[in-house]
Amino acid sequence: MPDLQQTYTALVEHLRETAVLRSCGGLLGWDEQTCLPPEGAEHRANQGALIAGLVHERSTSPKIGEWLTELAVVEGLKGAESPEAAVVREARRNYERSTKLPRKLVEELSRVGTLSQQEWVVAKKNKDFAHFEPWLTKMIGLKREEAQAVGIPKGGVIYDALLDDYEPGASTAEINSVFAPLREATVTLLSDIRGSGKRPDDSILTRSYPVDAQGEFAKKGASAIGFSFTAGRLDVSAHPFCSGIGPGDCRLTTRYNEFHFPGAFFGVLHEAGHGIYEQGLPRAQFGTCLGEAASLGIHESQSRMWENLVGRSLPFWKHFYPQAQAAFSDALKGVKLEEFHAAINDVQPSWIRVEADEITYNLHIMLRFELEQQLIDGRLEARDVPDAWNSAFQRDFGMTPPDASLGCLQDVHWSAGLLGYFPTYSLGNMFAAQLFEAAREKLGDLDAMFARGEFMPLKEWLNTSVHAHGQRYRSGRLIELVTGKKPTPDALIRHLNSRFRPLFGV
Amino acid sequence: MPDLQQTYTALVEHLRETAVLRSCGGLLGWDEQTCLPPEGAEHRANQGALIAGLVHERSTSPKIGEWLTELAVVEGLKGAESPEAAVVREARRNYERSTKLPRKLVEELSRVGTLSQQEWVVAKKNKDFAHFEPWLTKMIGLKREEAQAVGIPKGGVIYDALLDDYEPGASTAEINSVFAPLREATVTLLSDIRGSGKRPDDSILTRSYPVDAQGEFAKKGASAIGFSFTAGRLDVSAHPFCSGIGPGDCRLTTRYNEFHFPGAFFGVLHEAGHGIYEQGLPRAQFGTCLGEAASLGIHESQSRMWENLVGRSLPFWKHFYPQAQAAFSDALKGVKLEEFHAAINDVQPSWIRVEADEITYNLHIMLRFELEQQLIDGRLEARDVPDAWNSAFQRDFGMTPPDASLGCLQDVHWSAGLLGYFPTYSLGNMFAAQLFEAAREKLGDLDAMFARGEFMPLKEWLNTSVHAHGQRYRSGRLIELVTGKKPTPDALIRHLNSRFRPLFGV
Repeated sequence: MPDLQQTYTALVEHLRETAVLRSCGGLLGWDEQTCLPPEGAEHRANQGALIAGLVHERSTSPKIGEWLTELAVVEGLKGAESPEAAVVREARRNYERSTKLPRKLVEELSRVGTLSQQEWVVAKKNKDFAHFEPWLTKMIGLKREEAQAVGIPKGGVIYDALLDDYEPGASTAEINSVFAPLREATVTLLSDIRGSGKRPDDSILTRSYPVDAQGEFAKKGASAIGFSFTAGRLDVSAHPFCSGIGPGDCRLTTRYNEFHFPGAFFGVLHEAGHGIYEQGLPRAQFGTCLGEAASLGIHESQSRMWENLVGRSLPFWKHFYPQAQAAFSDALKGVKLEEFHAAINDVQPSWIRVEADEITYNLHIMLRFELEQQLIDGRLEARDVPDAWNSAFQRDFGMTPPDASLGCLQDVHWSAGLLGYFPTYSLGNMFAAQLFEAAREKLGDLDAMFARGEFMPLKEWLNTSVHAHGQRYRSGRLIELVTGKKPTPDALIRHLNSRFRPLFGV
Repeated sequence: MPDLQQTYTALVEHLRETAVLRSCGGLLGWDEQTCLPPEGAEHRANQGALIAGLVHERSTSPKIGEWLTELAVVEGLKGAESPEAAVVREARRNYERSTKLPRKLVEELSRVGTLSQQEWVVAKKNKDFAHFEPWLTKMIGLKREEAQAVGIPKGGVIYDALLDDYEPGASTAEINSVFAPLREATVTLLSDIRGSGKRPDDSILTRSYPVDAQGEFAKKGASAIGFSFTAGRLDVSAHPFCSGIGPGDCRLTTRYNEFHFPGAFFGVLHEAGHGIYEQGLPRAQFGTCLGEAASLGIHESQSRMWENLVGRSLPFWKHFYPQAQAAFSDALKGVKLEEFHAAINDVQPSWIRVEADEITYNLHIMLRFELEQQLIDGRLEARDVPDAWNSAFQRDFGMTPPDASLGCLQDVHWSAGLLGYFPTYSLGNMFAAQLFEAAREKLGDLDAMFARGEFMPLKEWLNTSVHAHGQRYRSGRLIELVTGKKPTPDALIRHLNSRFRPLFGV
């Protein structure tokens, strides 16, 4: 059917050009976080809004609707899970989502997002929630509008409409159902650990680690696990992130604190995990879903796997610890490998999510997930966020943040309009553990490989099992195809118990 | 006339949005030179081409033609030199230029320009003109096409059509007529200097100047003359440039050589001069000609004024030399201010334009101007460029370049299609000297101010006399309005004689 082929090609070309345009917005965003002079913020907001508007215009072009009508037969012809059917499926999903969003709302979300992030930086620095509150109010209002516009799925809740943007097909109810056993296991494990009375000496991690050496060492780690610096870079930003600008150009950021080793190092491993995924997406498919990440949950599974399952394992440090001792000879003099490994796996309630241990991390996420749902469905107002945050934090962690920068102002997400995003972090932890168990089955003795500094077998297995598919499958289906099982929190619970019970003798 | 006002507003809004889009391309270009990972080059080319195409589409929108027809009466209503008339005039100029250029030619110029620059890099590195020749031939052909398409002005020559893109309203004949006396004065002065047998010891400038300290010191210099780092930044690139991304965001680059002090320092002063102009353009007028630089010649007058007229003056160094001695204590130990000042004002024929002294610099420009005219009107073929260059160089400098990378391959301009650009450098020198004389008359004892480190009076005078007007006036008219005289080379000739005759005792 040559006509159908022609239509398919036209659709792909259109999607590709739109993606190129969107990637210009990606660079604007990266630059905003890393390079932009303060007085350039307003113009940057205008640039971002214009690109977002143009992307939206292209994404809602009636041509797409016509093409999609013609291409409705592709699924039947090629099979529901064929690459072509996936391209059509995701094109339809994005087209429908976009056409429901008024251009004015899209531009306003972009404009407010940019300004609001700038004000968030100020508010966080000054520990001043009141400074940020009007921006949060405005953003919540816009996100509610967005949710109403795209529509609440049948039998679902308003939050589902936002969640779907980050984790296609996921629902609030499902996530609550997998979070419940995870919370239960976490609370038990945490209580056992706290009951053990055992604490590693993690003061060794807050000695002086010169920033330049941290940067070098983190780059070495990122390279070793397979992040390519000829197709990427590492810079400094207030909030670490990974930005895949386009084929051959993926950018990581981190922040350095001379007196806190884990922050930058594990942060870079984390972002490099995202980056390896981006770099592993098929370049030739850029612009269609086959060249895009499956979901944020899958994305996070890649970062958390390298950061935690690999990066905080004893075998990893069997390889890297001698190099760490050479790079930070003052701080690590006389510190044994096992002491260092115990320190980087200390478990204790702490204020900051991105610095949290593997166990309490998911509690941080669940807290945000809970508040976000309330903010979006109207049970909670922006002005009440600090109180709500602090009382939930007291309930889950047994302590109350002394100021907003250690509490509800710590994350950039809400200022940027990323509501519905947080739960994907814990989904990522679950996916990571389930994929890692499958990798162990497939590849044999990963621990022995890591101890020899061999990370390529795992990286290449991820390339072919996960990255190469792009968004051909929805996240749940992808996990099922790769691991043989539907996603559950079981592997993560097994991992947490098997890593931490021995460390704390519980 | 409310309708006319509405049309004018619509035009301005359209121009502004186009400028915002173009400025996204500006960021892509800056990033390409400073940050882009090597494997990202292909995607960056796709991004740049897409933005350029969209900008061209917007710039040739028939709506503009309709608006301009309605707005033809503005000049009569508001006066020929009113801001509104200027906006309409430049909008018409740009619209006519854009619509006369077939999109295919625009795309071909962009495509060949990108490839040709890459081949120029190779050719220059290998000192191999033959490698570059086919690209130069192709580019010259395209530029001839461009000139024919935009049209040769009445009574003018084909080169005028290209020149007009960089220096609106200028003509080849006029430039020849101002270059002639400048050449005569230059040759005389140069011959006198060479006859003096006097040479400063400029080996002091090639001692070790640690790169970090150079960066710090250059930033200090740029700040002192008024470049704002809250609305700009300084980075490293292979070729120094200044890129005004948009209001509040102007970016300078430089390159450092530990064993060559003047390169980075005066390079940064030069780019900061451009940057101060960009930062001084009225932000609210961004997008119309009132928020844009008057011409490349005026732009260059700002960079060359700060670099040379101010930056290489004795009073400037009366203020800065103690700081330089503190920053570079090894290199400048025991070196007297007067010795340093003489060294940075050494005069001698040299191969490379961008490293040339103030006197020989204009001879470099005139040589290129001469060859460019011949290339465009067909008197000279690309293959004959090396011979033509070398014989002209022998004639003007009394020596012949040993290879093409020190000769006709040294500049990026021709590979990038920037033909008609070079003469604006010497126009800039002339404008700078004429403006500087006017500033002296207006502001009093500038030398005494500089010696006290007071550069703001000059900077603010330039802000109000030059920058604030944007492109309201054509360059010649602007110079006349500010200095009371039409542009001539007289002030430049006076400056060169009064600076260099005493230094060389001639």
